Amino acid sequence: MRQSHLFTKTRREAPADEVAKNAQFLIRGGFVHKEMAGVYSFLPLGLRVLEKVCGIIRKEMKTLGAEEIFFSSLQNRVLWQTTDRWDDERVDNWFKTKMKSGTEVGLGFTHEEPITAMLKTHLHSFRDLPLSLFQIQTKFRNETRAKSGIMRCREFLMKDLYSFSRTLPEHEAFYEKVKGAYRNIFDAVGIGGETFLTFAAGGTFSKYSHEFQTVTEAGEDTIHLCEKCRVAVNEEILHEQKTCPVCGTATLTPKRAVEVGNIFSLGTRFAEALRLTYRDEGGKEAFPIMGSYGLGLARLIGAVVEIHSDSAGIIWPRNVSPFEVHLISVDGGKEEVRGVAEELYRSLSERGVSVLFDDRDARAGEKFADADLIGIPYRAVVSERSLKEGGIELKERGREHIVLVPKSDIPTFTFA
Amino acid sequence: MRQSHLFTKTRREAPADEVAKNAQFLIRGGFVHKEMAGVYSFLPLGLRVLEKVCGIIRKEMKTLGAEEIFFSSLQNRVLWQTTDRWDDERVDNWFKTKMKSGTEVGLGFTHEEPITAMLKTHLHSFRDLPLSLFQIQTKFRNETRAKSGIMRCREFLMKDLYSFSRTLPEHEAFYEKVKGAYRNIFDAVGIGGETFLTFAAGGTFSKYSHEFQTVTEAGEDTIHLCEKCRVAVNEEILHEQKTCPVCGTATLTPKRAVEVGNIFSLGTRFAEALRLTYRDEGGKEAFPIMGSYGLGLARLIGAVVEIHSDSAGIIWPRNVSPFEVHLISVDGGKEEVRGVAEELYRSLSERGVSVLFDDRDARAGEKFADADLIGIPYRAVVSERSLKEGGIELKERGREHIVLVPKSDIPTFTFA
Repeated sequence: MRQSHLFTKTRREAPADEVAKNAQFLIRGGFVHKEMAGVYSFLPLGLRVLEKVCGIIRKEMKTLGAEEIFFSSLQNRVLWQTTDRWDDERVDNWFKTKMKSGTEVGLGFTHEEPITAMLKTHLHSFRDLPLSLFQIQTKFRNETRAKSGIMRCREFLMKDLYSFSRTLPEHEAFYEKVKGAYRNIFDAVGIGGETFLTFAAGGTFSKYSHEFQTVTEAGEDTIHLCEKCRVAVNEEILHEQKTCPVCGTATLTPKRAVEVGNIFSLGTRFAEALRLTYRDEGGKEAFPIMGSYGLGLARLIGAVVEIHSDSAGIIWPRNVSPFEVHLISVDGGKEEVRGVAEELYRSLSERGVSVLFDDRDARAGEKFADADLIGIPYRAVVSERSLKEGGIELKERGREHIVLVPKSDIPTFTFA
Repeated sequence: MRQSHLFTKTRREAPADEVAKNAQFLIRGGFVHKEMAGVYSFLPLGLRVLEKVCGIIRKEMKTLGAEEIFFSSLQNRVLWQTTDRWDDERVDNWFKTKMKSGTEVGLGFTHEEPITAMLKTHLHSFRDLPLSLFQIQTKFRNETRAKSGIMRCREFLMKDLYSFSRTLPEHEAFYEKVKGAYRNIFDAVGIGGETFLTFAAGGTFSKYSHEFQTVTEAGEDTIHLCEKCRVAVNEEILHEQKTCPVCGTATLTPKRAVEVGNIFSLGTRFAEALRLTYRDEGGKEAFPIMGSYGLGLARLIGAVVEIHSDSAGIIWPRNVSPFEVHLISVDGGKEEVRGVAEELYRSLSERGVSVLFDDRDARAGEKFADADLIGIPYRAVVSERSLKEGGIELKERGREHIVLVPKSDIPTFTFA
C-alpha cells in the first residue's frame, strides 16, 4: 500500500491522559484512535495487525476442532438470573441498558449463559459430544479504572472458546490441548518467552484456574514465578499456594505481569442451572462438563507492543506486522531514484510481499522516524546514495546493521 | 465439512413467536439462533453466509478505494451533544448505558460523529482528500417493535461507509460510484432484479436521499415503483413527489419492500458541528463535504431468503451459499455406497469445491428434507440405485430435474 494513500498520519504526541506505552505508540503510529478511557477504535494499520492475530487464533481453534460462531452482545436478563450472574452484587462490571418496553438487557462480558442456552436446541445425544465452539466478538466490561492503554478496555474483542464434554477425562484432555494451542498462539505473536502458565483462583469446580500472564512492567497483576519450571502463582492465591505447584520450591520471583488469557473448568454449573442435558450411552439424561477459554485480542496486541518496542516506537514480530516491508523512497524529487523505488514496489507486490511504500513528498528524517514508530520489521531504502553504491539499503527494525542489496539481487531477494 | 461434525441440527419448528419467513428458515436450518425479539446470534452455517456477503462487500469497497476501519460501539455523549443527536427527543432509538462514574455512554446506531471527530487528528490538507472509510461493525437500535425476523434487529452488523470530499462535484461523483457498487453487491447476492433505487426523505443538504429497496411481501415499507425506469418513490415523500423522478410518469405501482441500503449526502453538517477542517489549495480553512452509505448485512441475508426460498426451505444463490455442493450418502450402511461417497467428498474437497457431506446415519427422506431446508444450490446423491445406474444423481435446489453424472465423469465434473 502507498503511504500517501493511507489516511492515517503519525502523530508526535499521544493524548495527554494516555500513560501506557502500548497505547501511546499505537495512537502515535496511527494504529488506533482513543474514543474514551478504555475505549479504542481500530484504524487501517491496527486492523491489519488485528487480522493477523485473528488468523493465528483461528488456525489454532480449527486444529482443536472448534466451530466458529458469532453471538450477540445484547443479553437476555432471564438467562443470567437463572445462573445468578445478573445482580450487580454478583457481577460488578455489567453494562446494562433498557429496551423501549422497559425490560433490562445486559451487554455481554462473557457468553457461557447464551451458548449453554442455545445448545438446548442442538445438543441431544452423547454422539453430539464432545463439542467446542468459539467466537471472536466484542465484550463489554464496566471497569472502574482503565489506565493500561489497550490492555484494560471497557469494550474489546475477545476470542472465547467453550467446550462441552461427556466425562471428566474427556474434558481434561481438551483442557490440556487448549493449553498447547494457547502456547502456540503466544509463540506465534512473539510473546511466548515472556508468557507463563499461572495458577489462579479456581472457583467452584477446580482448585485452581489457569491464566497466561505476560511479564511486563505495564502489567496490573503480580505473579510469583518459578524460573526453573516456568510456571507462576498469582499473588491472589499466594496465601494458600506458597510454592511452585510443579517442583515445590519456595523460591518464587515476584514479577509484574498482564493476564493475556485464561482457562476455566466449569463443571456442570451452567448446564445444571440452565437444564442443558443429553442422552448418554445408557439412554439416561446427563449434564455435559463445560470449560471456557478466553483470550483478549487488544490485550495481546498491547502486550506485544510493550515487549517489542524501543524508545523510537514499535518493533513488530513478523507474524503480526501490518506489512512485511517498509519501502522508503528518499528521492528528493529525483526521477531516477523514484523510478527504482516504484519498480521495486511493483515487483515486491507482484511476488506477494506486503509492502508499505513511503512515496510521500517528505524529508528523509521524517520518513525514517515514521518507519521506526510504525515498526515494520524490514526497512528498505532507495536513495541517491544507495543507488550510487549499487543497490538498496536494507535494515531490520531494532537493529543498527544496514545491508546493501545489489540491484541485480533485488528481483529474487527474500526477507528471512 | 462433514454434517456429522456440524453441531447445529435442523429443527422441525421455529420459535412460536417467529412470524417472518426469513427467520423461520434460518432458525430451522441452523443458521441463526434467536436470543430475543430482534436479537440473533450466528451459528456456523449462518457465519459462512455472512462471510460470503462480507467478501462481496469488501471487494466493492476496495474498488471504491475505501480503507477499512473498526470503530467502537460505546459512544462518547459529548460528541453527539455537539451535533444535537444525543437527546432522545432527537434520536428515538438510542440504547444508553452508564459507566461506573455515572457518565452516560451510548451504543452506536451509526458512526458519523466518531469518524468525523477522529479525522480531526488525521485530516490536514487538501492533499488528504478525497477519502473514504468503511467498517463492518455491530450497530444497536432500540426498535419499539421487531417483527420482521432478521430484517429489523435491535443489534445487527452493518457495513457503513463515509466519504469526505473537497467539492460538491467530487462528492457527487463518489456518490454515483457508490450507487454502482451497491448495484454490484445486490446483483452478486442475488437480489439485483428485485432491488430498486428509491427516492426518500433527504434531510438538510439534499432534496432526497436514496434508498435501495428490495420488493418482498415481508417488507415493512411501501414504495411506488416506475416499472419502466426501475426506480421508486418511498411512500413517505409521495405527497411531494407524485411522479417518477426520472421519466415523470404518474403511473407508479405500490409495492411492499424492505430497505437494504441507504445513501446520504450530508454536506458540511457534521464537519461544521465538530470543527473538522482542512487547508485548501489556497491555504484557507475549509470544511469537507461528507456522505454516508449504509448496508445492513442481516437485512440483506433476510431479503435473499425471502426471495430465494420455497415451501421446503432456502434456495441460496451460489455466491452466498454456505457450501457449493451438498453431498448426500444414501448408503443404509452399505460399504460400497459409502466408499464412493467418501471418495467423492475427498476428491471434490481436493479440487477446492466446498462440500457439506451428509455422512450421518439417517434416513434418506430426512437427509433430503434437511438439504431442501438448508438450501445449498447443488445436491449430489450417492445411493445403491444411482450406482446401479452408473453414477451419482445431481439436482439443483429449486428444480425438479435430476441428472445422472456417470462415475467416470466425476473426477472432472464441474458445477456450472
